[in-house]
Amino acid sequence: MLFEKVLIANRGEIAVRIQRACKEMGIKTVAVHSVIDRDAMHVRLADESVCVGPASSKLSYMNMGALLSACELTGAQAIHPGFGFLSENATFAQAVQDHGIVFIGPTPEHIRVMGDKVEAKKTALSLGLQTVPGSEGEISTLEEAHSISDKIGYPVLIKASAGGGGRGMRVCHNPCDLKEHIEHASAEAQSCFGHSGVYIEKFLACPRHIEFQILGDHFRRVLCLGERDCSVQRRHQKIWEEALCPVLTPSQRNQMYTKIIHAMERFGYQGLGTLEFLYEDGNFYFIEMNTRVQVEHPVTEMIYGLDLIRLQLQVAQGIPLSYTQDDLRPFGHAIECRINAEDPENFCPSPGKISAYAVPGGPFVRVDSALFSGYTVPSNYDSLISKLVVWGITREECIARMRRALHEYVISGIRTLIPLHLRLCDEPDIQNATYHIKWLESYLSGQNISY
Amino acid sequence: MLFEKVLIANRGEIAVRIQRACKEMGIKTVAVHSVIDRDAMHVRLADESVCVGPASSKLSYMNMGALLSACELTGAQAIHPGFGFLSENATFAQAVQDHGIVFIGPTPEHIRVMGDKVEAKKTALSLGLQTVPGSEGEISTLEEAHSISDKIGYPVLIKASAGGGGRGMRVCHNPCDLKEHIEHASAEAQSCFGHSGVYIEKFLACPRHIEFQILGDHFRRVLCLGERDCSVQRRHQKIWEEALCPVLTPSQRNQMYTKIIHAMERFGYQGLGTLEFLYEDGNFYFIEMNTRVQVEHPVTEMIYGLDLIRLQLQVAQGIPLSYTQDDLRPFGHAIECRINAEDPENFCPSPGKISAYAVPGGPFVRVDSALFSGYTVPSNYDSLISKLVVWGITREECIARMRRALHEYVISGIRTLIPLHLRLCDEPDIQNATYHIKWLESYLSGQNISY
Repeated sequence: MLFEKVLIANRGEIAVRIQRACKEMGIKTVAVHSVIDRDAMHVRLADESVCVGPASSKLSYMNMGALLSACELTGAQAIHPGFGFLSENATFAQAVQDHGIVFIGPTPEHIRVMGDKVEAKKTALSLGLQTVPGSEGEISTLEEAHSISDKIGYPVLIKASAGGGGRGMRVCHNPCDLKEHIEHASAEAQSCFGHSGVYIEKFLACPRHIEFQILGDHFRRVLCLGERDCSVQRRHQKIWEEALCPVLTPSQRNQMYTKIIHAMERFGYQGLGTLEFLYEDGNFYFIEMNTRVQVEHPVTEMIYGLDLIRLQLQVAQGIPLSYTQDDLRPFGHAIECRINAEDPENFCPSPGKISAYAVPGGPFVRVDSALFSGYTVPSNYDSLISKLVVWGITREECIARMRRALHEYVISGIRTLIPLHLRLCDEPDIQNATYHIKWLESYLSGQNISY
Repeated sequence: MLFEKVLIANRGEIAVRIQRACKEMGIKTVAVHSVIDRDAMHVRLADESVCVGPASSKLSYMNMGALLSACELTGAQAIHPGFGFLSENATFAQAVQDHGIVFIGPTPEHIRVMGDKVEAKKTALSLGLQTVPGSEGEISTLEEAHSISDKIGYPVLIKASAGGGGRGMRVCHNPCDLKEHIEHASAEAQSCFGHSGVYIEKFLACPRHIEFQILGDHFRRVLCLGERDCSVQRRHQKIWEEALCPVLTPSQRNQMYTKIIHAMERFGYQGLGTLEFLYEDGNFYFIEMNTRVQVEHPVTEMIYGLDLIRLQLQVAQGIPLSYTQDDLRPFGHAIECRINAEDPENFCPSPGKISAYAVPGGPFVRVDSALFSGYTVPSNYDSLISKLVVWGITREECIARMRRALHEYVISGIRTLIPLHLRLCDEPDIQNATYHIKWLESYLSGQNISY
């Protein structure tokens, strides 16, 4: 079915991003908004808009009934969920379908499977992808612990089943210490959580977060649109993303592309999706799959010259992919800095009115935001307010361009992460790409853990 | 010599554009400004700035003495002239050199030769490029007129040597009418200009303006960075530019690239330059060469993924080109719309204060401007205030993106050409690329001349 009108069940920069693709394809857009977002840019730029509830996102952007009513009211034939909110809610996807509306995303069943961490890992394993190796459930004897640890190789991580926050967790570097560490972890788990059960997993000291972008059509064809390195994270929140990953070799990435395409074609996956892996010592360990477009999709767009939202809308309309994997030729390097409305010193949210606003321009600079001068960033939603993305022939040129663009970017009246990103541009570990998922937190705490 | 500091002898978007390249290369920038431009963006973004005179550009941006003094004062090792002002002034280029400062451009001699229309054509001919064929000077007998017209082929254009504004000009379609047309033109020329001499040239009915971007280093190596189609013009002012030209075949363009590279290597040309041609019926006729960066350079940058100003600065520092012609692979299509501060109905300048300003964003959209909210566009300079450039995999996608971006662009308080460009996006002659250098004027006057 070709769409004439699409409802975008989201707000902020991603709602604007989806509108842009729709407009370029000649598709009318319906914006939904909470009471507080009445004057937001995604409302101003839409062809029509519907208020779906009060400020609380639970009661507005995640209000299934109101969203379905808005579709009926406006005659939208499809819903684009963006990311966050209801984008990975299988119940919503099913309800949309049941109302005869197209949910722009994979099937409800695929969303459900990948939304369950345990089922997602089992599925990935069954599709030939590796996960972090370890015991299947709790270990019952020391012999079992030795046999598993020998198999996966030292160092191993002993983790309390009931654990959290680092407690009931021990790293063991050789078999001689195994007994002692298990006893410690077990005892700690018992005293902290009232349950002494532990399991064993391969210990990853400084892994990178590397994720692969895929796109499947309705005819069991899947493309892999390269990978992104999103290792620069704070509390599992990515803030600096790159494509391609600066440390993989062509043969490493091609092997992964082939493996992932094969797995996803078997899975029958439709639409945009991302498979996330931890990467260490040449090995990839599947951690989860996001069954939606991601915040960091622009870096992939810039190196492939493709509009992923346009492609997503095309496959959702039942149009077969017009590219083959061999057609895809990444060119150059791209980096995204997430500009959050947060204090760059302590990451406290910094909502408020933007008194002056000027975006960077010139060659190979892209800004995805929904900001304008005079706009008030509300405190009710995610603090991501803008994405600054730059492209360069080389990674070095790319970082130089990012620094230049960050310097030009004026967002007055609130605090943002711009000063932090400016510091990152000058950090040797960023410049040399010698970072990993624990790097940013140790950098921020003043320690310097390098490889 | 590697530059540590460059003085940019220009204003507006091109001064900002050059600053961006310098910053990304780690080169400090010196802005110059007239009294009236004291708060302009190019001054705000520069590392240092010097006032070089009153509002009148003759007394400030074209004030050679003041510019040279500003260099001495700030210790800038080189001057980038941008376009317009002194960028094609051989005397200035020579004076800069004589002061031991690098002029970022070709040699004074190359500027001089190409700045003289007659000498430029002679040079082009001697380098193997075709010019519009015709008589060498005035014709003296009817026999001579017949012989030349037979040689160049009908229709021919009879033009008064002293002519202008279309007077003393006749198109002749066959030999039988030649005598009559010459007599008419001659008589008209006599009565209008007091001189009856006429010459004969091949008549080009609806040519396109196609120009080739070149870049030469100091080692006699020249690259041809493709061509641009700039046929959409009003009174010889381009307003819509594309790369590559939508009507050339790969073999046509490759033949021209080879010919031009050969010619420019023989000429020994250094730096950025553009060779402009009229194109009709498969033939290219050299009209002039611009020995500087052009307004429309971004469309070339977007399809090649290259930063032309960075490359220009590199060759000016004596660095050899690191690309070969075979390395250059254009990808996709790019269009630039010139946003002038002009009434879109009558092209009257519309200076004034910008009360609200918001630039388009999202994928593959670039804005080169020096505007900001609250800025007052002065009446003293060129009306070009912004360039909106978009890229797309196909030309069709590119036009759709341009329409979307134009809709997003908010420049309140003054009139601009945005409404005209929006109309152009919907014009079949634009969509089908069936335009030529006379198309826009006839379109604006309500006639519709198509091929």
